[in-house]
Amino acid sequence: MSEHETRIEADEKVPTIEIVREFDAAPERVFRAHVDPELYAQWVGPRSLSTRITRWDARTGGEWAFANDRDGEEIATFYGSFHEVRPNERIVWTFTYEGHPDVVALETLTFEALEGGRTRLRTLSVVGDFETRDGIMASGMDTGVNEGYDKLDELLAKDS
Amino acid sequence: MSEHETRIEADEKVPTIEIVREFDAAPERVFRAHVDPELYAQWVGPRSLSTRITRWDARTGGEWAFANDRDGEEIATFYGSFHEVRPNERIVWTFTYEGHPDVVALETLTFEALEGGRTRLRTLSVVGDFETRDGIMASGMDTGVNEGYDKLDELLAKDS
Repeated sequence: MSEHETRIEADEKVPTIEIVREFDAAPERVFRAHVDPELYAQWVGPRSLSTRITRWDARTGGEWAFANDRDGEEIATFYGSFHEVRPNERIVWTFTYEGHPDVVALETLTFEALEGGRTRLRTLSVVGDFETRDGIMASGMDTGVNEGYDKLDELLAKDS
Repeated sequence: MSEHETRIEADEKVPTIEIVREFDAAPERVFRAHVDPELYAQWVGPRSLSTRITRWDARTGGEWAFANDRDGEEIATFYGSFHEVRPNERIVWTFTYEGHPDVVALETLTFEALEGGRTRLRTLSVVGDFETRDGIMASGMDTGVNEGYDKLDELLAKDS
């Protein structure tokens, strides 16, 4: 398995964060790892935490929620809505950390087919102001993203 | 009933639209006119169109959709998710016009109590780039907003 770099970029002109990552699996499999709750719980987030799905209805108009546990103890919960689930192509969801209930990110994930059965996944995350965006960037989210995508690489290699 | 001005403002620094409007009714009633589908259909949008609710589950994690008809013929459909419904205080929903399926706005409505049993309603609408935001501003949305809020004034005066 090749090593893939994750690019995490804050835009200068708009309060967005773009994350781009390639995977050695077809869009169908990378997409499925985002909508199947058993798969999603296996890879999302940093290695130090486990994910427990508490609500999951991965369809346009559905909702989701999960908790993060460390050593069996809940330390954070998150929730949102699936605005759109377009099979194998695109997911648009909202995202709130319950510790900051007034902050809502709108995230658009696009699954682009590359040669050789690979996928480029882009996540564009939008919030309403730069202060909020910069706070998210400074929160250590890069560790969760990087370690999560490494776990997703491992899952995709295993389940092929 | 007093005449109220609707302020619709595009921010220079972020791709948002803020709409501010006061109503001569308490937050509970203005809020209810946004979550009760029978009330919502009576006032939302321009006077030239009627609104037909096709999906409506106004709770955190629920979904909504409606169609606009002119002379009995469907001319546009819209859908989204209720990311959060915080009774009498705040609604966060997503919004897509099905004619532009890749454009998603994240809207936050806050219901602020004013003296004399009145309400200030603020709607902050966020999209991912300025071009999209400017396109929404140029779409004639101001007519729908202004006429809709005038209809909401009439509804609030009637049902008091």
